[in-house]
Amino acid sequence: MAKELTSREENYSQWYNDLVQKADLAETSAVRGCMVIKPYGYAIWEKMQAQLDKMFKETGHVNAYFPLFIPKSFFSKEASHVEGFAKECAVVTHYRLKNSPDGKGIVVDEDAKLEEELIVRPTSETIIWNTYKNWIQSYRDLPLLINQWANVVRWEMRTRLFLRTAEFLWQEGHTAHATKEEAIIEAEKMMGVYSQFAREWMAMPVLEGVKSANERFAGAIETYCIEALMQDGKALQAGTSHFLGQNFAKAFDVKFLDKTGKLEYVWATSWGVSTRLMGALVMTHSDDHGLVLPPKLAPIQVVMIPIYKTQEELDSFKDYINNLKSKLIEKGISVKVDDRDTHKPGWKFAEYELKGVPVRIAAGPRDIAGNTIEIARRDTLTKEVIPIENAADYISDLLDKIQINLYEKSIVFRNQNTHHVNTYEEFKMKIEDGGFIYAHWDGTPETEEKIKEETKATIRCIPINEGSEEGTCIVTGKKSVGKVIFARAY
Amino acid sequence: MAKELTSREENYSQWYNDLVQKADLAETSAVRGCMVIKPYGYAIWEKMQAQLDKMFKETGHVNAYFPLFIPKSFFSKEASHVEGFAKECAVVTHYRLKNSPDGKGIVVDEDAKLEEELIVRPTSETIIWNTYKNWIQSYRDLPLLINQWANVVRWEMRTRLFLRTAEFLWQEGHTAHATKEEAIIEAEKMMGVYSQFAREWMAMPVLEGVKSANERFAGAIETYCIEALMQDGKALQAGTSHFLGQNFAKAFDVKFLDKTGKLEYVWATSWGVSTRLMGALVMTHSDDHGLVLPPKLAPIQVVMIPIYKTQEELDSFKDYINNLKSKLIEKGISVKVDDRDTHKPGWKFAEYELKGVPVRIAAGPRDIAGNTIEIARRDTLTKEVIPIENAADYISDLLDKIQINLYEKSIVFRNQNTHHVNTYEEFKMKIEDGGFIYAHWDGTPETEEKIKEETKATIRCIPINEGSEEGTCIVTGKKSVGKVIFARAY
Repeated sequence: MAKELTSREENYSQWYNDLVQKADLAETSAVRGCMVIKPYGYAIWEKMQAQLDKMFKETGHVNAYFPLFIPKSFFSKEASHVEGFAKECAVVTHYRLKNSPDGKGIVVDEDAKLEEELIVRPTSETIIWNTYKNWIQSYRDLPLLINQWANVVRWEMRTRLFLRTAEFLWQEGHTAHATKEEAIIEAEKMMGVYSQFAREWMAMPVLEGVKSANERFAGAIETYCIEALMQDGKALQAGTSHFLGQNFAKAFDVKFLDKTGKLEYVWATSWGVSTRLMGALVMTHSDDHGLVLPPKLAPIQVVMIPIYKTQEELDSFKDYINNLKSKLIEKGISVKVDDRDTHKPGWKFAEYELKGVPVRIAAGPRDIAGNTIEIARRDTLTKEVIPIENAADYISDLLDKIQINLYEKSIVFRNQNTHHVNTYEEFKMKIEDGGFIYAHWDGTPETEEKIKEETKATIRCIPINEGSEEGTCIVTGKKSVGKVIFARAY
Repeated sequence: MAKELTSREENYSQWYNDLVQKADLAETSAVRGCMVIKPYGYAIWEKMQAQLDKMFKETGHVNAYFPLFIPKSFFSKEASHVEGFAKECAVVTHYRLKNSPDGKGIVVDEDAKLEEELIVRPTSETIIWNTYKNWIQSYRDLPLLINQWANVVRWEMRTRLFLRTAEFLWQEGHTAHATKEEAIIEAEKMMGVYSQFAREWMAMPVLEGVKSANERFAGAIETYCIEALMQDGKALQAGTSHFLGQNFAKAFDVKFLDKTGKLEYVWATSWGVSTRLMGALVMTHSDDHGLVLPPKLAPIQVVMIPIYKTQEELDSFKDYINNLKSKLIEKGISVKVDDRDTHKPGWKFAEYELKGVPVRIAAGPRDIAGNTIEIARRDTLTKEVIPIENAADYISDLLDKIQINLYEKSIVFRNQNTHHVNTYEEFKMKIEDGGFIYAHWDGTPETEEKIKEETKATIRCIPINEGSEEGTCIVTGKKSVGKVIFARAY
């Protein structure tokens, strides 16, 4: 079923677009590049938010809210920052509309021009550090560990649902520290939080590393990142955490009295993940039948569908399933009973496959007579018939198993699509098949640029937490301190 | 202590501003009219959000997310709507900045002018109904019960933290129905949800009613509202729920096939509460010592402060209090132990009074020797010494008591400040003292306008759920179908 979904083999990109829309995750809006996140998609995002928020709070962070708008002059204060964002900014210039003189519709009131234009935040370092200036005087005010859940706008020219949209939802952490070391530890810690979230909740393995200078965040000294591999062999940057040094403290003159009474600039980090994770989730697990959701993020974990002909049979299904339903809910499992009479069971099966519900339960008169139920797994598309007695425990275990299976499958896929190469020839051949490629690189932006131009591959990260061995650059033959990871990327 | 707080008697408005800032709820930002919600303030808002979200979901609603921007042309489609909002809109006209030709800073790139200007949403009816057009074909697609948590922008000229800001956070529900009756029931139901939330969580009594035509939402047929009374005798509109009729369905051509196969326009509601509730919360309960928070919304419900001189005394306090702390946490009570050695107990007492922590526990060597603790209530500023044994149960009950006490105190205040008048003379006299005034009104906008001009009082609501009795208008002597409620308002 789910007939209208393009297959991945036929056209991966079209498959993704079809799936996001047909599974009711999101759709394009009337506003160029902006999406509507539909209720089912938003329910998944809410689950991501809730868990991330919990992890942020467990690591000592609190939430706050800063203005949507940033005065243009703030933007210019950190040179590389403005360089990185100026070309994709939505700019507010006026604050009033009026009736058009010809009586047809409304026009911008030119008398209501702002003295200074306001930028719709593409990220909030500047407005936040301008605020921190008043919050930080002494080492006693540090660290400041603050996160914000917000919408941001980057005027991207080519947009795709979740992956790259003009407006997106995200969280941005902005922390202030007394020492360089503490700030670096924070930046690394948050990469770790993202990595753990990706693994344990999204069932998505990620590589941890730092970005090369070319790929660094505009204004950062070091950008830590997690990189995932999609089913089409392209990499996806799933989260970044930046050590910002004293760049923003200097731009906004944020100093503190340290314990010895000396005035010092404050050290900073920022880190974020966005609704882009929704795209990563879709592309990591889903198949030609539709979405496949890890149970921990599935809005509906178990769907129950009656097989019946008569009202009596439907009633007896409801009675039959009721106790199991209660037991599942008691275990904190989200259950939906779809007893609509407007759709046939086959249609419902396809619908919940499309929506990625991890476990489907069906029962008809024969199951009821035999005290059994049919259980179908979305991840493997396998079915089995089990006794209804103890089914609650069985399903609870099954959800855990599915979560683990999805992660292990993704690990296997990534391993199969990760290669080490020693020559540029080999690199150029392998990159055509997609996947991560470990290769030696001489550390220069020039070589990186040449590889990008010739192969469309970028350095996804310089791995950390992995051993490294010296070698020679595949392009220039110059010395390399260790292999870095290349891929074509979203 | 809390010496820098202006007293309410001296200057209520200044007291409010002082309090919001000194209690770390919010502050003004560098962007005109936009506030920074500080972590402590945001923690209260998060508690409000969590409970409201729960109540929305329990009444069948789901969350989604719609674009921040609205094309200007959408705005014009509903005539009274654009009339209501056009004068306070932030308008995006460009999508790029560039280096200024003189090399000094950045300027708007005039080559990147939008073909059609975008409005930063002041409310989302138009963009949402333009989307609903594609979601609704048949009665089977109805009702649509969707809520959005979002930021909105209204370019207000005179702003005040939380009460009236250019950008604020809110939720906006937008529902679509097959019948007029169902939509009216929905609009009334959501007023009820708001009213329940105000009473049970904010400990804030509210009147329920409908707005007069003058005060109705731009585009609504009927606006339901809840109105609270602040300590200075001014009313505050705390939430509104609108029956929109078919206005937006007609403006965006949203029709559905009903059960009989007839094509009909869809019926709509919208409803919202915002960070304005934070202002209402502050002004309902707080005093000259600072914030007073109802326990259900307090980020910290119990604070424990050691009275000590030596490190040994501090250690023994921690041991002494530890078991009680665990028991409170087990009961779901949020506890903070403030054992900082940088501040004296007296300073801490004042600090948590300012922050409105409902219960303060202190213990020194003498308490420890006697197996007692000192408990202070923020609402009554009373203290008592009780045995530490069973203190957990005592405190748990006390938090409930404080919640109820705050509500009852507010009810008493409102009753003392609610008057029925029979003549315009009496009205003009009473209105000077503030409070709600019940008076007969002839139902015309002209009379309402006259009263507003002469007394600054507006009709807060036409009460529902209260009995009404015919009479004669206090101004014109014409027939009145029942008293309405006047007040000067925020």
